[in-house]
Amino acid sequence: MKRIYIKDLEDHIGKEVIIKGWVNVRRDQGKMVFMDMRDFSGIVQCVVLPKSPAIEIVKEVRTEWVLAITGIVNERPAKNIKADILNGNIEIEIKNIEILNKAETPPFEITEDTKEVDENVRLKYRYLDLRTKRMQENMRARDKIISFFRNYMHKNDFVEIETPIMMKGTPEGSREYIVPSRLHKGKFYVLPQSPQQFKQLLMVAGFEKYFQIARCMRDEDQRGDRQPEFTQLDYEMSFVEQKDVLEYTEKMFIELVKILYPNKKITQIPFPILTYKESIKKYGSDKPDLRKNKNNPDELAFAWIVDFPMFEKTEEGEIQAAHHPFCSIKPEDKENFMKGEDIFSLRANAYDLVLNGYELSSGSIRIHDREEQKQVFKLLGISEEDQQKKFGHILEAFTYGAPPHGGFAPGIDRVVMLLQNEPNIREVIAFPKTGEGRDLMMNAPSEISKKQLKELGLKIE
Amino acid sequence: MKRIYIKDLEDHIGKEVIIKGWVNVRRDQGKMVFMDMRDFSGIVQCVVLPKSPAIEIVKEVRTEWVLAITGIVNERPAKNIKADILNGNIEIEIKNIEILNKAETPPFEITEDTKEVDENVRLKYRYLDLRTKRMQENMRARDKIISFFRNYMHKNDFVEIETPIMMKGTPEGSREYIVPSRLHKGKFYVLPQSPQQFKQLLMVAGFEKYFQIARCMRDEDQRGDRQPEFTQLDYEMSFVEQKDVLEYTEKMFIELVKILYPNKKITQIPFPILTYKESIKKYGSDKPDLRKNKNNPDELAFAWIVDFPMFEKTEEGEIQAAHHPFCSIKPEDKENFMKGEDIFSLRANAYDLVLNGYELSSGSIRIHDREEQKQVFKLLGISEEDQQKKFGHILEAFTYGAPPHGGFAPGIDRVVMLLQNEPNIREVIAFPKTGEGRDLMMNAPSEISKKQLKELGLKIE
Repeated sequence: MKRIYIKDLEDHIGKEVIIKGWVNVRRDQGKMVFMDMRDFSGIVQCVVLPKSPAIEIVKEVRTEWVLAITGIVNERPAKNIKADILNGNIEIEIKNIEILNKAETPPFEITEDTKEVDENVRLKYRYLDLRTKRMQENMRARDKIISFFRNYMHKNDFVEIETPIMMKGTPEGSREYIVPSRLHKGKFYVLPQSPQQFKQLLMVAGFEKYFQIARCMRDEDQRGDRQPEFTQLDYEMSFVEQKDVLEYTEKMFIELVKILYPNKKITQIPFPILTYKESIKKYGSDKPDLRKNKNNPDELAFAWIVDFPMFEKTEEGEIQAAHHPFCSIKPEDKENFMKGEDIFSLRANAYDLVLNGYELSSGSIRIHDREEQKQVFKLLGISEEDQQKKFGHILEAFTYGAPPHGGFAPGIDRVVMLLQNEPNIREVIAFPKTGEGRDLMMNAPSEISKKQLKELGLKIE
Repeated sequence: MKRIYIKDLEDHIGKEVIIKGWVNVRRDQGKMVFMDMRDFSGIVQCVVLPKSPAIEIVKEVRTEWVLAITGIVNERPAKNIKADILNGNIEIEIKNIEILNKAETPPFEITEDTKEVDENVRLKYRYLDLRTKRMQENMRARDKIISFFRNYMHKNDFVEIETPIMMKGTPEGSREYIVPSRLHKGKFYVLPQSPQQFKQLLMVAGFEKYFQIARCMRDEDQRGDRQPEFTQLDYEMSFVEQKDVLEYTEKMFIELVKILYPNKKITQIPFPILTYKESIKKYGSDKPDLRKNKNNPDELAFAWIVDFPMFEKTEEGEIQAAHHPFCSIKPEDKENFMKGEDIFSLRANAYDLVLNGYELSSGSIRIHDREEQKQVFKLLGISEEDQQKKFGHILEAFTYGAPPHGGFAPGIDRVVMLLQNEPNIREVIAFPKTGEGRDLMMNAPSEISKKQLKELGLKIE
């Protein structure tokens, strides 16, 4: 007999079925035993009657055991019907129980929201935490949101292209994770902070409309709600101006909310546009929370922040790119840029999308001219030799017919977090790490063997 | 005026339009100049007539320059119509040319198939190689194939879940790439060889039907057609037996060919099933090419190879898992397995899908019982202490109600290669590395600064 998913039981009223899943709740009433059985598709109430051949075995069964149950799908008496829940009108009368696996008592209740449980315990037993209703819903919502984005991109002629996980180290800002090469000892790959250079090279390659659900890794100090790994909807378009990227993105987010979160309300359409200066002046922040009611998670206040400065001063007084060195300069500021004058007043064609006080995404129209790109590097104090060594490939690519291009990269983790009304991104990532970058379930990072280190030509100091 | 894609020009006959793209071909006939313009959507012939205001500028233009062209879409005279190509019935009469970017002469012809060009040159100028028709088609076909798989999985209730790129080192077979931790000096993450353990833990977490287009990294010696990075369609199902996984997979591949490659013919449906022993005996290989005509790339001879041995001897005479240590043992061999007898005769519930002499995918029904898993580790000579250290999380997970489960992981690169009739996987990967793991375009791996190494507490020997 074929297993029936619990969500489909209603189609089998009066028939004998097999269901498979976990014991969600068990209520021993002496003569009869009730159990709620759970599979990925839903929950159903089951009962073992006193004369059932399963009465002995069910006495032994505990919650979270894995069972295959044979039984009859019965309609409930009218007084017991719960109209508002799945299978509220049926009940399975158990004929036989096969124990597929037993279970120890879990460290927390699977049937409850684990929000209040010690997070270290939740992370250690992530495979149990993920069994809970809220976490199952978060993971499935994440998949739905990502699927929405993919479909939207495909419908608009974008092509998804995978870019390498192991690439060349090219310091663009944040610190990179490194991967030692065994075949080329003393040399290293790095993990991508973002596919920035690859997507620009794909524009040079003529794809015009690229996207990728991209995995990114940054070795940042883990203050606040950060993860060493995150996911972004990375996209890039050729022959576009800033307004094209903003328009495309705005339409996409409006559609996302309309289709997947129709109960949520967008505060203002079209999204308000503020310059960086205006935003700082008016709200003291470049990611203002523009909700009318700041406590309402179902209100979505999107806003555009534009005209970001191109350069900023580090704490050590050095000049650095405020976003990254590939942003183009606003036409009005081009003259000063080429002259290298009044550097900190230069504005980039760079824009952020902000939602409820969070930066959802950063983007820019890029440089596609070799001389302009070299001017940025020069202003950043990168020598001619270092330019060639670190960025030679992109400078050369610009000499072979690079089109004007620009892009954007909304952070998936934050989008899902905000839409699912969660307080941090760990709630919407299947296997997140702690603030210190630890995987408490598998216990990573961990030591490796001397043999492995020797093969890589490395020594721990 | 809005830019029109070249594929859509036919809808604008008689009108003035703007197109943007690259000069594909240029033919200077003295008085008139003809150009084929190319964008991501197609190619169109353009002409500059002697009296056009653009006649001066077009004399300067060269192939691969990036232009914005304003012109009239004219119908061609009947004798010049080419019925079988896109835009074969129209021609653009150029009124104005704006040069968006110039281009050096490329190192190879963009209009030709680059199959015969020195591969090192192609890899160095990958952004130019990817402009060619064949490579554009390969990348777009790859996206279509992956999209097909995703849609098929979603339609069948699978949920896509992202698993970590930085995980714990757990030697399952091949050599892993390592990532030193800065916050925890002397400790390391590794890059996943596959999401094997995560997908099993997702089954313990009750998702039942998981999939992921998964990025995998293996530090293998690069013999043959291998890449340090590859992509697999990773999936896992709970409450299934071997025949369920085979049936699901077979249906999916038949549908893939039917929808995306209707010109290709599958040699035999249902796919023939051979045991490992039979295949070795009859064909001297566990990945036989069963095509009737071995030279026909449009013939697809799928075959199942089943009953792989669980253990094998290494060259050094040590015992190792033939596939990986998480495969379950065939019921007939269970007694010997638990006794530890006749080890090399034990067969696993492990299966391969083979296509035209290539292994497309490996999979198995897994162990979900703690004691059986410990018995595999014991037979592999892993001490009680090492079992806890390396696999403690999965042994513990099996005590909390792990369902029976199994899965599969077809290699995307090979699938695309075979369906696109390409001789190696580098032709279907956007940015592949050389046989020695080098990225010739960006020049990776490369040296990193002393400061970076010091922060990681590492020294090069």
